[in-house]
Amino acid sequence: MSSKAVFYHAGCPVCIDAEKNLAYSLDPARFKLEIVHLGENKGRVPEAIASGVKSVPALLLGDEVYHINFGASIDDLK
Amino acid sequence: MSSKAVFYHAGCPVCIDAEKNLAYSLDPARFKLEIVHLGENKGRVPEAIASGVKSVPALLLGDEVYHINFGASIDDLK
Repeated sequence: MSSKAVFYHAGCPVCIDAEKNLAYSLDPARFKLEIVHLGENKGRVPEAIASGVKSVPALLLGDEVYHINFGASIDDLK
Repeated sequence: MSSKAVFYHAGCPVCIDAEKNLAYSLDPARFKLEIVHLGENKGRVPEAIASGVKSVPALLLGDEVYHINFGASIDDLK
């Protein structure tokens, strides 16, 4: 069974790079990857904050949030 | 052909969590993963710095470094 992986980003260069090189490097046999652009989907910002996302790009694997480098603060996406 | 992936860490809780949940989540069909404990292998700190690692845990995919959350500064591992 696949686990859910959510990659939150905001379209910034750091985000796009992490999406291409890291998020899409997850084992597709184990993860069902969802890409969420918080700039275009502001309605999902509260969900990201509730999951512990403090900056983007961030990868949510199960209940754990992994902030990858730094593109933008979640506060700037509200 | 597999690409090389190097996960640099220092044994800290943040590092161990990222190793278990993120590094081992990479697609094994695409990446040959090496785990490097910089606290136990200080001789590899210069190599990590040359690759752009500024803190651990960090994942090197090809030439790109992804700093994952924050465990310790590379300066504290010299």
